[in-house]
Amino acid sequence: MKFTGENVQISRNAKVGKNVRIGDHSVIYDNVEIGDDSIIGNHCIIGEPTSDYYSNTEYSNSKTIVGTNALIRSHAIIYSDVHIGDNFETGHRITIREGSRIGNKCKIGTNSDLQGHLTIGNHCQLHSSVHICQHSMLGNYVFIYPYVVLTNDKYPPSEKVLGPTIGDFTQIGVHTVIMPAINIGNNCLIGANSCVTRDFESLSFIVGNPAKRVSSVEEIKSDEGEAMYPWKSRFSRDMPWEA
Amino acid sequence: MKFTGENVQISRNAKVGKNVRIGDHSVIYDNVEIGDDSIIGNHCIIGEPTSDYYSNTEYSNSKTIVGTNALIRSHAIIYSDVHIGDNFETGHRITIREGSRIGNKCKIGTNSDLQGHLTIGNHCQLHSSVHICQHSMLGNYVFIYPYVVLTNDKYPPSEKVLGPTIGDFTQIGVHTVIMPAINIGNNCLIGANSCVTRDFESLSFIVGNPAKRVSSVEEIKSDEGEAMYPWKSRFSRDMPWEA
Amino acid sequence: MKFTGENVQISRNAKVGKNVRIGDHSVIYDNVEIGDDSIIGNHCIIGEPTSDYYSNTEYSNSKTIVGTNALIRSHAIIYSDVHIGDNFETGHRITIREGSRIGNKCKIGTNSDLQGHLTIGNHCQLHSSVHICQHSMLGNYVFIYPYVVLTNDKYPPSEKVLGPTIGDFTQIGVHTVIMPAINIGNNCLIGANSCVTRDFESLSFIVGNPAKRVSSVEEIKSDEGEAMYPWKSRFSRDMPWEA
Repeated sequence: MKFTGENVQISRNAKVGKNVRIGDHSVIYDNVEIGDDSIIGNHCIIGEPTSDYYSNTEYSNSKTIVGTNALIRSHAIIYSDVHIGDNFETGHRITIREGSRIGNKCKIGTNSDLQGHLTIGNHCQLHSSVHICQHSMLGNYVFIYPYVVLTNDKYPPSEKVLGPTIGDFTQIGVHTVIMPAINIGNNCLIGANSCVTRDFESLSFIVGNPAKRVSSVEEIKSDEGEAMYPWKSRFSRDMPWEA
Repeated sequence: MKFTGENVQISRNAKVGKNVRIGDHSVIYDNVEIGDDSIIGNHCIIGEPTSDYYSNTEYSNSKTIVGTNALIRSHAIIYSDVHIGDNFETGHRITIREGSRIGNKCKIGTNSDLQGHLTIGNHCQLHSSVHICQHSMLGNYVFIYPYVVLTNDKYPPSEKVLGPTIGDFTQIGVHTVIMPAINIGNNCLIGANSCVTRDFESLSFIVGNPAKRVSSVEEIKSDEGEAMYPWKSRFSRDMPWEA
Repeated sequence: MKFTGENVQISRNAKVGKNVRIGDHSVIYDNVEIGDDSIIGNHCIIGEPTSDYYSNTEYSNSKTIVGTNALIRSHAIIYSDVHIGDNFETGHRITIREGSRIGNKCKIGTNSDLQGHLTIGNHCQLHSSVHICQHSMLGNYVFIYPYVVLTNDKYPPSEKVLGPTIGDFTQIGVHTVIMPAINIGNNCLIGANSCVTRDFESLSFIVGNPAKRVSSVEEIKSDEGEAMYPWKSRFSRDMPWEA
């Protein structure tokens, strides 16, 4: 049904693995490497050249790597100089700019916008319409929900940008803003609609604008009185400890 | 000017009504039915296969229905197993995932993202960049403004998701978050930037984070002292009671 | 690498300047004028016809102007009756609707949505995912950060819409909402996550929901004790006073 090969353009300098399927109207530019068994949807652009391309006649595309077994849905734009691990999955119309380093088994939701020059660990899940600024550092198993914005410029506009650092297993609720250079520990939960203006230690349950520590996440109980966090012991879908 | 037929792909198993126009570079997949007099813009994908398609060699697309007289603007993605009534209208780059049931005369704005497995009544208007989670239930004449997010997971990540229910004629202001499983009555007005963490009865005017009931909407007066809500008696554009 | 001319459609009534490059799968409709040395990315639509086109057999596209030296990235949609000055630059998937008047050397980020019938001065920079409502008026050197929403309808739904007015050199922080008909002076700084419900005079530092004046921006000092605002004296990248 898909993958009829209509209007697919693949650079002669791209390396496409075995059993890779590329959707109609998609373009793979120079120096892109796509791992075996990966799927690229329709209308995608992989290896988008950076701004230099338009002005520098000597421009050549930096290496772009998409690991094995990726599923990149339609209308995605992935710049050159992006390195992504194995088992990557995305929604539609994601944007990932140059200088991004992304680990294995990450998911990125529809319309999400990664501004480049950032690091994301393994098993991270970014939901729809997430905005990750330059120089962000996400650990492993970081979950970020829709319309979250990470920021990096304390006194805008400026040339001095410092991205946030988010620890392993930490979750950031919908519509939350993380201010520049903020450090969040591991296993934190940040409630919806918060504005995080200072650092927080591991295991903090954080809410509000400006966000404050409400308690340890270990005190959060379900309606049935069950301890919910850290979540590793009770959630396993797509995780390495899945049965 | 448009509709030159360039690169249009239509499955042999799709049923396209009379007088339907389909924009360049658009794709209509298997088992899609498009009603008479409908317009599909450029670069659209209608009947996008679900995830199963990539792994199941026996996969076949569920039925996808777009009613008569639709106007779906460019770069839209509508999955298979979406049923939409008549007189549907959208902005650009909307996404509607599988399991969505949408009534007649609804509008969905540019960049809006409907996550599927949801129900929307008749005459609803979702503005730009609205995010509707799975298992949401919207009544009739529900109006939702930009960057609103409906959520369904109280203790993320989890397998237990419960979407919000929004009553007839209720409006949700820009940038508001509705928490999981929340019930909002009819004819409510939720102010901009609110975070709604509990149920509210009909006719409530609701504002804040966490949102509180300020008054009945019947007490809201215009600068000229005119009662503004319920709005049905004073607004008729595109409504069935329009003269 | 790009600009292979695949599937490029250019109306015979469009005027394309010297040395213009147009990306694959892009469409330039009737009565579009593109200035010399401009670049249009892939999958773009320039001169998108307005709603009338679908119902009026006499429809003809209003003039659309993109100045010289533009860089419009992929998947952009610019309607007819949009006039844009020189040195315009955009991210991906921007939308600009009819009746927009935009000055010189403006930048508009990925996924931003300009609803039309609005005015933007010179040297304005709108970051990613900004939503500018109809009848907005932005001065010069206005900087707007991600997920900001400008609104125009005080008692929705209504037929009476009044957009905000934003003064020169004013900056609006991420996730902020500006309410209808609000006037913000020059050289203001509005903090992240604010909801601005009343007018503010020039040089105000504004934060909160509802937003309040915290101080003059002149009192904001960096960690090193340096005065940061007005910012004109300390930031020059891409500005006319750049060395």
